[in-house]
Amino acid sequence: MPKPFKRVIEELSKLPGIGEKTASRLAFFILKSDLSYAKNLAHSIVFMRERLQLCSTCFNLSESPHCYICSNPQRDKSILCIVETPQDLAAIEKSRDFRGCYHILHGRLSPLEGITPKNLKIKELLERIGSENIQEVILAMNTNMEGETTALYLTKLIKPKGIKVTHLAQGIPMGADLEYIDEVTISKALKNRIEV
Amino acid sequence: MPKPFKRVIEELSKLPGIGEKTASRLAFFILKSDLSYAKNLAHSIVFMRERLQLCSTCFNLSESPHCYICSNPQRDKSILCIVETPQDLAAIEKSRDFRGCYHILHGRLSPLEGITPKNLKIKELLERIGSENIQEVILAMNTNMEGETTALYLTKLIKPKGIKVTHLAQGIPMGADLEYIDEVTISKALKNRIEV
Repeated sequence: MPKPFKRVIEELSKLPGIGEKTASRLAFFILKSDLSYAKNLAHSIVFMRERLQLCSTCFNLSESPHCYICSNPQRDKSILCIVETPQDLAAIEKSRDFRGCYHILHGRLSPLEGITPKNLKIKELLERIGSENIQEVILAMNTNMEGETTALYLTKLIKPKGIKVTHLAQGIPMGADLEYIDEVTISKALKNRIEV
Repeated sequence: MPKPFKRVIEELSKLPGIGEKTASRLAFFILKSDLSYAKNLAHSIVFMRERLQLCSTCFNLSESPHCYICSNPQRDKSILCIVETPQDLAAIEKSRDFRGCYHILHGRLSPLEGITPKNLKIKELLERIGSENIQEVILAMNTNMEGETTALYLTKLIKPKGIKVTHLAQGIPMGADLEYIDEVTISKALKNRIEV
């Protein structure tokens, strides 16, 4: 096997979930693609790594030490929305309905995968709650077992500090056909029904 | 989501078997790794793509238009060993027992995955057989269903041309414990037993 090929396999195999076999399939694909693809891929990787960092306050991806949300004086610093990933933050921002700030955990508790509180940005969240003037914490974890465990864990830590803790409403999503909605969602939607 | 991050996801998603979710997991990993890792990965990709090509004769990976095997005058050009991948070629070369040349198919027939004869270097193999003075073709496909289908397909194409077609012996591998060898291998080893 020529050395340049071996080296690509070696480097790709360091990525999570990429074994030697997958790495060699990817390397072949790159070999058969245009040179411009190899160059674009390589450039995008180095450019991202050099440009991006995590915001030192909320741990969002950022091109500067403070992300565009934390450094925006018009955002309400007293309401924190806690999300698992920067992708979740992006989804909430798209709604244009939240004017508070965020805190990104970078994952959710998952004992099976060995993800414990110290693997997440929970200590940093508690420090923020201790030092900033925070009135409300909105838990916006994903609505699966691990997300809900994480939310429960955070509630137990934050509520005793006398801070209002809320979570996103659970119910029927827009455009959904009731026929295809699972029973847990229906139960939640019934339980939390709203008077008109 | 910052643009540099989005761009990496876009480029990684073009790789086979890498969806947007996997791409974003990989991008995060790169973001959290040392800058040197991002640079090494990027450099290895471009270096490989610029340096390597497929040998125009046998389709092995090569740093020149003719690979080191095809351009070695000491290799026997009348015996061709047909393999699925350059990795298989490397495995055979390690034995140091084969002094002929190779032809790499770059895959095996797999109707389920949509891999038909025209996706493999079979036309090129037949052209070589037509133009070079080839006495023997050794089929060294992997010993699974798809490999054997490919071998059978090639046998039917090549044998009528009056060329000797052989395949690697199948039997008990070195260092194996008979207790753990599957029954098909035992059957083949019995059937092809050798008088001492």
